[in-house]
Amino acid sequence: MLTESQLDRIEIVLVSPRNPLNIGAAARAMANFGFTHLKVVAPYEAHWREAQSAIGASDLLQNAKRTESLEEAIADCTLVIGTGTLARRKAEQPVIPLPELGRRVGSELARGGRIALVFGSEKRGLTRDDLSYCHLLAVIPTDPHQPSMNLGQAVAVCLYELAARGEPHSGRQGGDAVDVEQLRASSGELDRLGAVIEEVMLAASYSPIETQAANRHDLRLLLRRLEISGADARRVLGLFRRVLHKIKS
Amino acid sequence: MLTESQLDRIEIVLVSPRNPLNIGAAARAMANFGFTHLKVVAPYEAHWREAQSAIGASDLLQNAKRTESLEEAIADCTLVIGTGTLARRKAEQPVIPLPELGRRVGSELARGGRIALVFGSEKRGLTRDDLSYCHLLAVIPTDPHQPSMNLGQAVAVCLYELAARGEPHSGRQGGDAVDVEQLRASSGELDRLGAVIEEVMLAASYSPIETQAANRHDLRLLLRRLEISGADARRVLGLFRRVLHKIKS
Repeated sequence: MLTESQLDRIEIVLVSPRNPLNIGAAARAMANFGFTHLKVVAPYEAHWREAQSAIGASDLLQNAKRTESLEEAIADCTLVIGTGTLARRKAEQPVIPLPELGRRVGSELARGGRIALVFGSEKRGLTRDDLSYCHLLAVIPTDPHQPSMNLGQAVAVCLYELAARGEPHSGRQGGDAVDVEQLRASSGELDRLGAVIEEVMLAASYSPIETQAANRHDLRLLLRRLEISGADARRVLGLFRRVLHKIKS
Repeated sequence: MLTESQLDRIEIVLVSPRNPLNIGAAARAMANFGFTHLKVVAPYEAHWREAQSAIGASDLLQNAKRTESLEEAIADCTLVIGTGTLARRKAEQPVIPLPELGRRVGSELARGGRIALVFGSEKRGLTRDDLSYCHLLAVIPTDPHQPSMNLGQAVAVCLYELAARGEPHSGRQGGDAVDVEQLRASSGELDRLGAVIEEVMLAASYSPIETQAANRHDLRLLLRRLEISGADARRVLGLFRRVLHKIKS
């Protein structure tokens, strides 16, 4: 089982959840497995208020943080894991079957990282844009005839897997001192780096304005594929800032 | 993942479920993980009708078998697994953490057995009497501060575990010929044996009528602890019938 200090470094993020019962069910599954950090991205206003004011709504739900964008919700996380099925599209990032996620999360916790597990809305799951912020896509091994899970049940299944098998197997355990050179760049650091690289691409006429959105999307995925440390990300950021300054002057 | 013929030998049993939404959620989780056999024991009439007539209610729900007793629902199963937490009572049968259940189910499938996974009602879970029909109690490793799971989520978590890790590791796979000497006695065979032993206990004045109910409960548990084969159960039944005849004549 995960320790409290390990659970403290895992965030559960619901993107635009709609059904107040599902929001309540997600919060209940979190409490069942000892998770405490809930973030809700751009919820449907009335439904979110209803979920928070429901009789028996937990402290966890009352204390949930609300953000307008996924980018903001996961900014301090070093490993962002999207959840879903492969029914609708080919994934643009590495895919991991849920039964193997525990080991991956365990090694990230051992390294001192902070993890986000991201769930899409009931209707459409995570969008391609949401997924471009994810290092990994964890796939629940559902039956091809009925792949799509209810949100509350999907959260329960994923959190059970993490709680039961997410424990670091060896090496540094959560809460201990962190080797800054080893620690992965957070999602926010990658976004700051991405923004400067994008400026350079435009300034150097590498990227015309028409393909800017597509390039930004691909760059976001690329930066996550690199699994770069925070220290290296800052070095690279310094380099690109220098380059940008040079081009512009 | 489990094969179709393995999934075909696993029954999901809901004892007195109350909330139609939970019944629907349980059925949906079954479909998500490829399970097809649902049995419902003594459901609350109006709620059961509501669940079955809900818009989008699955064939699985329409085809669910309904029985008045748990004994009847699981009569042809060779391994009956209750589910729950240890929050309220000390278990009278072996307890297995859910993350280890896959291996146990896998070996029973390899032996050619038939499995029931039993869930209690939302309010009180499985009763002591229900549990006396179970060979094992599978415990979901929930947080002691919030141990009790929503029924639909508990079903999803348990079925995910079986689907992901219930596969037989070696030996005979599901669907192949079964070694009759190895095959465990079914729950119904154990109950028939128990009934004759009880008659003997009364006839031999071992068990006064006042303790009959308590003795029946203990005997039911004992017969399940023995893990006796069906062939041996029939041999023992023959012996006790002979003994009964002798005492009475």
